[in-house]
Parts: sequence; C-alpha cells; structure tokens
Amino acid sequence: MNAKLGAEFIGAFWLVFGGCGSAVIAAGVPDVGIGLLGVSLAFGLTVLSMAYAVGGISGGHFNPAVTLGLAVAGRFETRMIAPYWAAQVAGSVAAAAVLYVIVSGQAEFAGVGGFASNGYGAASPGGYGLTAALVAEVVLTAGFVIVILGATSASAPPGFAAIAIGLALTLIHLVSIPVTNTSVNPARSTGVALFAEGPALAQLWLFWVAPLAGGVLGALLWRLLFPTPVPAPGPTGEPA
Amino acid sequence: MNAKLGAEFIGAFWLVFGGCGSAVIAAGVPDVGIGLLGVSLAFGLTVLSMAYAVGGISGGHFNPAVTLGLAVAGRFETRMIAPYWAAQVAGSVAAAAVLYVIVSGQAEFAGVGGFASNGYGAASPGGYGLTAALVAEVVLTAGFVIVILGATSASAPPGFAAIAIGLALTLIHLVSIPVTNTSVNPARSTGVALFAEGPALAQLWLFWVAPLAGGVLGALLWRLLFPTPVPAPGPTGEPA
Amino acid sequence: MNAKLGAEFIGAFWLVFGGCGSAVIAAGVPDVGIGLLGVSLAFGLTVLSMAYAVGGISGGHFNPAVTLGLAVAGRFETRMIAPYWAAQVAGSVAAAAVLYVIVSGQAEFAGVGGFASNGYGAASPGGYGLTAALVAEVVLTAGFVIVILGATSASAPPGFAAIAIGLALTLIHLVSIPVTNTSVNPARSTGVALFAEGPALAQLWLFWVAPLAGGVLGALLWRLLFPTPVPAPGPTGEPA
Amino acid sequence: MNAKLGAEFIGAFWLVFGGCGSAVIAAGVPDVGIGLLGVSLAFGLTVLSMAYAVGGISGGHFNPAVTLGLAVAGRFETRMIAPYWAAQVAGSVAAAAVLYVIVSGQAEFAGVGGFASNGYGAASPGGYGLTAALVAEVVLTAGFVIVILGATSASAPPGFAAIAIGLALTLIHLVSIPVTNTSVNPARSTGVALFAEGPALAQLWLFWVAPLAGGVLGALLWRLLFPTPVPAPGPTGEPA
Repeated sequence: MNAKLGAEFIGAFWLVFGGCGSAVIAAGVPDVGIGLLGVSLAFGLTVLSMAYAVGGISGGHFNPAVTLGLAVAGRFETRMIAPYWAAQVAGSVAAAAVLYVIVSGQAEFAGVGGFASNGYGAASPGGYGLTAALVAEVVLTAGFVIVILGATSASAPPGFAAIAIGLALTLIHLVSIPVTNTSVNPARSTGVALFAEGPALAQLWLFWVAPLAGGVLGALLWRLLFPTPVPAPGPTGEPA
Repeated sequence: MNAKLGAEFIGAFWLVFGGCGSAVIAAGVPDVGIGLLGVSLAFGLTVLSMAYAVGGISGGHFNPAVTLGLAVAGRFETRMIAPYWAAQVAGSVAAAAVLYVIVSGQAEFAGVGGFASNGYGAASPGGYGLTAALVAEVVLTAGFVIVILGATSASAPPGFAAIAIGLALTLIHLVSIPVTNTSVNPARSTGVALFAEGPALAQLWLFWVAPLAGGVLGALLWRLLFPTPVPAPGPTGEPA
Repeated sequence: MNAKLGAEFIGAFWLVFGGCGSAVIAAGVPDVGIGLLGVSLAFGLTVLSMAYAVGGISGGHFNPAVTLGLAVAGRFETRMIAPYWAAQVAGSVAAAAVLYVIVSGQAEFAGVGGFASNGYGAASPGGYGLTAALVAEVVLTAGFVIVILGATSASAPPGFAAIAIGLALTLIHLVSIPVTNTSVNPARSTGVALFAEGPALAQLWLFWVAPLAGGVLGALLWRLLFPTPVPAPGPTGEPA
Repeated sequence: MNAKLGAEFIGAFWLVFGGCGSAVIAAGVPDVGIGLLGVSLAFGLTVLSMAYAVGGISGGHFNPAVTLGLAVAGRFETRMIAPYWAAQVAGSVAAAAVLYVIVSGQAEFAGVGGFASNGYGAASPGGYGLTAALVAEVVLTAGFVIVILGATSASAPPGFAAIAIGLALTLIHLVSIPVTNTSVNPARSTGVALFAEGPALAQLWLFWVAPLAGGVLGALLWRLLFPTPVPAPGPTGEPA
C-alpha cells in the first residue's frame, strides 16, 4: 500500500510541477513563450510519462475524480478512495511549494499572481461565467473518465492506455484553459490555490464538485452503454 | 448494436466538442492562443483517444465518410451505414449544443460567428474557391481512408492504428484549415452548421459530397493497388 | 511489385502534399499560422501515418536517400532502387501538381513563390550558404538513416519504428527549415522545384547530392559501429 | 563495448545537434519561429528516436546523470560509468562543433552568442537565480530518472519506454527553459559551453552538480518507494 500511495504522490507532484510549472514559468515569455498549446502539452505529458513509470504500481490516477470514477465503474476498491485522495492532494501541495521556491527566485519577482489556479467569472482567463465553467468541467471530466475506462478495458490493445489518457488530457486543456484554466482534477486545483493570489481558494469548491460529478457521470455512462467489457487481467502498467 | 451506436455517438461528440471547441474557445486568444496548430492537434487527439477507448466496440469511425469508405472496401456491413451515420450526426449536434452553452457564457459574448463551421469562397478562412475546396476535401479524405485501411490491415503491427489515424487527422488539419476550415467529416460539419452564423448551412452540401466522394475514392484506390491484404482477425481496439 | 511501387507513390504523394502543403497554405497565416513548428509536425506525421498504412507493403521509404541507404546497409535489393526512385519522384510531382491547383484557387493568388522548395544562399530562408546547407543536409540525412536502420533492427521493439522515424523527420525539420527549408529527401525537393518560382530547379542538384551522400554515410556508420544486429524477420509493417 | 560507446556517442550527438541546433537556428525566427515549444519538442524527439534506434545496444542513456542514476539504482555496472560519460561528452562536443560550422555559414553571422548554453542569474533566460536553478535542475532530473526507472521496469508494458522518456524530456524543457535553458544533462551543457560566448564555461559546474545530484536523488527515491519491481529481462530496445 505504501508503494501505491507513493506512486500517486509522485504522479500528482509531477502533474502539478510540470503542468502548472510550465504555465507559470514559460507560457507568457514574450515572442517565444509556449502559450496555451505548450501548457496543454505539458499537462498531458506529465500523465503520459508517469503513467508508464508508476501506472503498473498504483494504476496511475493522480486525480481524485479519476479515482472516484474508477470506483463507481467497479474498477477500484472503495476503501482505498480516501488514502488515494490524500496522497494526490499531498503531492500537489508539495509540487506547488517547490514551484513557489523557483518562481520566487526570479530577479523581477513581484508575487505569484494567479499561480495557474483555476477560476470562473472574473477569475476565468476568458471571462466565462459559473455555468459555463461547470458545464465544461463536468463534460470534459466525464469524457476523460470514459477514455480511461475504455483504453484500459479488455477491448483495447494492451500497453497504449497511457498514450491515450495523457494525450486526452492535452486535448482537454486545448479546449478549456480559457474557460477555467482547466482543472478536471481537484488535487491539481488545490495545490496551487493554497499559494495563489486572488479568489482561487474561495472558488476551489467548484473544482472539487464539477470534476467529481463529471467522473461519476462518465463512469455511469460507461456502465450504461457498455455493460459487457471487462477489465484487462494482470499487471499492465496502465490505470486499472 | 446499441453499444456500437453509443460508441459512435460518444466518439463524434468528443471529436466536435474537442476539435471545434478548441477552435472556438482557444485558437484566437491574444498572445498565447493555440492557433491552427493547436486546433489541428485537438482534432487528432479526439480521434486518437476515443479510438483507443471505444474503437474495440464500434470500430471507431466517428465519421460518415470513413464508414462509407470502409463499406466500399468490404470492411463494414452495408446495412449498418445508415444507423452509424445517424449516431455520428447526433453526437455532433449534441456536442455543438453543449459548446454553444459554454461559449454563450462568456462575459463579452456577442454571437457565435462562424462557430468553426466549414466553408468555401467568401466563407473560406483564406478565401479559397469552390474548386480548391472540393479538391482539398476529396484528396485529404481519400488519404485519410487509405491510412485507416492500411493501419488496420493485417500487414500493419497491431495496436498502433489509433495513433496513425488520429495523427493523420492532425496532419490533414495542418494543411487545410485555411482552405475550408477542414471537414473530411460530414457529421462534424453538420453539428456546428446548425448553430453558425453565415452561409454554413447553405454550403453544407459540399462537406457531405466531397468527403464521401473522397472516402469512396480512397477505398477504390486501396482495392486497386493492394488487392491482397486481408483485415486483421479478432478484436483489436482499432477501426475494423 | 506493382503494390510496392504503388505504396511508394502514395507515400511520397502524402509526404509532399501534407508537408509542403502545410508550408505553402498554413505556415504564414497571420496571428494563428502554424509556423515552422506546424510544418515540422506535418512532415513527420505524413511519414508516421503512411508508414503504418503501407510500410508493411513497400517498407515505407518515400525517399530516394532512404532507399539508397537501406541498400548500402544490405537491407534492400539493389535492382529495386531505380523503380523505387521513379515511384517516389512521380508521387512527389503529382502531389505538387494537385497542390498547385488548390493554391491557385485562392482569391488573392499571385503566383506560388518559392512553393516550399529547398535552397541555399539567397534562396535559404535564413540566408545560409552552400557549405552550411551541405553539412546540414548530409548530417541530418545520415542521422535519419541511422534512426531507420536502428528502429527496424532486431534489437528494437517491434511495431514502434514508424513513430521513431516519423518523429525523427519532425525533429530534422525543427532544426533545419531556416537553413535549406529542409530536404533530406530528393523526391520531395524535385516535385515542388518543378512549379516553384526562383532558383529551385538550378539548385536542385544539391538536394540530390547531399541527402544521397548522407544516406550512404549513415548506412556506412551503422555497419561500422553495429556490425552484429540483423533485420527483424517477417512482415512488421515497418521499413525493412 | 565499442558498439555501446558508439551508440552513446551517436545518441548524445543527435541530442545536442537536434536540441541545441533547433534552439540556435529556428527558435527565434521572426513570426514563424518554433519558440520554446519547438525546442522542447526537438530535445524530446532526439531521445525518442535514438532510444528506439540504439537503445537496444547501449541502453540509450545519452546523459551522464541518467547513467549515474541507473548505476545507483542497481541497473548499470559501476565500472562502465566513466566510459559512458566520456562517449556522451565526446558526442556532445562533436555535435556542437558541427553546429558551429552551420551557424557560422549564415550571411549575417556575428558570433554564436549564448549558443543554447545553460546558465543562471544574469545568464538565465528569465533571470532566475542560483537557488532557483539548482532546485529546478535537481527536481527535474530526479523526476526524469524516476520516469526512466519506472518505464523500463517489469511493471511497465514493454516497448513504450522510449516514448515515455523522450516526451518526459520534452515536458522538462516546457517547464524550465526560462530558468536555466534546461540542462538535466551535463554532457549537453558541456558541448555548447565550449563554443558559447558569455559565462557558460564558468557556470558549467552547476550543470554537472545539479543533474548528477538529481539523478542520484531520483534513484534513491525509487529504491525507497518501490523496492520490489525488478528490471525487465531480455533485450527490449529500451534503456536498461
């Protein structure tokens, strides 16, 4: 069990350090910055790389909404939800702290600003309201969980799930950074909200409620539409 | 059969919500927008991720031109063409509707504009005429169907088809967004045309005719050049 | 044999239509254009997708320098070099012709300009001279052939070669578009040179000499350093 | 042994020629330059492509910090560390020399400037200080080594390691180019420092100390958290 929680801690650390780190450090550099496309790629590649590295140990969730969705789909033990969530949030907070150390070492540092936190309304990058934020987060998390359930099912070729899942997370960011800065992952939202200036903590509830609701919705849709497929047997290095 | 149609509905939903959504929401953000490159990546990754997720269930077409091409190539039952088309169009329309809800929740919302719809002539992003649009859509859809037929044939390594096919769709967008906003998929064109301002509905005929013609052309070329290869046996999670 | 030549024709067509097409149509669109990064990705994805589609039929060269390098390395029959080269050049010329039809259908069309042709000196995008162009093309083609020989050897995991090779071509373009507009492929250079304005035809010799020399160099280096590995047996859908 | 060292030489050559080459030649081209995103992709694709090509021969380290980390994790023979380091540095220096020849062939050449070298303080692209540079390099190299150890372990699906590792290097660059120009690889830093103008040589110590420390940290964390998994048996074309 310690190995599983260690894997979830490291995976969530890598996700927040790499994804939020790229947003804070590299997105807005004049002329050559990586922009929203680079940030989207970074988030996806954190999951792709760590799912191959430790997915065979913990399943590679790195995300409370994924853990809940897998449990609702009957693919994860209910009694392990709470420890997984704790490890994921701890990894996210640790990553945000290390990121703070780096960012505050810049010569012209004058506060972290939004620190890649999620938000709606005035805190949405593109000024999207609460309903738009809620719909986007629910729909995209539901789709994410469907990709995870499908790509790790017995009807999918073995070994490829981390590619499908990581690049699905890239896709999700390509769509929705302007809406909410993209969460679909309550742990990711929590880590940076603790350090961010502005309303991130006050709005954090939405980035627990909407991704968790989306994860449950995706799992229920999967069970409704595809009752037959069974999970692949044995250790495959993919989220189980 | 319900599972197959459900898979096609979800795949087409994801394709339009992710691909058109990235175009409408994120492409043109000043300074850090994802541009045509990000939109191209988004379209491809919708197919890559959902083909791994549900390709083993329905074949993962998500596109009437692909369904027709596979039927012409002898890889898909003719009697299933109509239900597949219906599910694909329904998924696309549903995605466009959800996308409309999100986009209209932006503070400075003033109408959806083109809404990522396809067009030629004055409605072409780069001012390309009818002939150029027709040639581009036919040739690119033909190539797309050839990639699909080849990557799922017995002479290709198993498991990789969703990567080849998804990234081929990215490539197709990299070439042709300035020409027609890139269709190669009548269902994708139909969903957003219902909501778009401008001539999208009036020009929709071309984005049925040209992709379907291209799909047939690709399938005939494949049969002419490569009569020998047979489809891979068994469920592989790839379009069959 | 007709199937093999048909596969090489289609692959070279796709490479030039997709790679050069993206450069001519989409690279320089104001604000949202795909830039050199998008063009690099497009070239690589043409090879990735068509190598999975028809690599199991012809080996998936699509490039006279690759064909020659494989022959020098003892992996390809010498008597087939000439027919492969002919098919590759024919595919490239056909793609350039179709691309011309599309590009000339733009409302503000005023000539094709460089038409994504290769050049050095005044015709180099960044003003690189003959020696720099020669060195870049030789070194990058040699590296490309080493990647191909290695990724299709018995010491590499089966099935992944098309990913390694396609993305190596993307990498090569990321480095060298400013130097020569990147050839490493004489067929690719020939097709567009026939339609381009400027000195492309007069400079075409270099884009045969340097890539072919690089292909031979890569093959000789491989044989010198790694005499032991033998090609993988059986049909694998990868360049053989 | 010569084959192994030849493979490491070629891999490090490709990494520096492709990664640093893309930065020097293509990153800052006006309007269409590849930017930090393109450079990040280039670095990752050098490793992805050469790990498939020669990873089955040498393990595909191309990086002294990776070699040391694998030795600390018990996956690499201690007596081979020094020869591997020598081959990696030699490949890097050779690549920097060839790159110099190309760059100095540009019409408006006026010195190589930073030549993609690594730096901190005034030499950091974004003005990040020594502590920030140290923390970033240590943490990112540790994560890199964890991805390598995990993706090549028995609990990961075989064949995919080069994708996970190469794209992890892309991710690492997406985060940290503004901080240090991204090293995580002492050989990469050494090659270009020999040619660069400015303080690159004087600061080179940090880009040996921090990546090596990070490599050891990653290996120790891996052993602490995941004592059970054993390396996959047999030749797999992946770093061992």
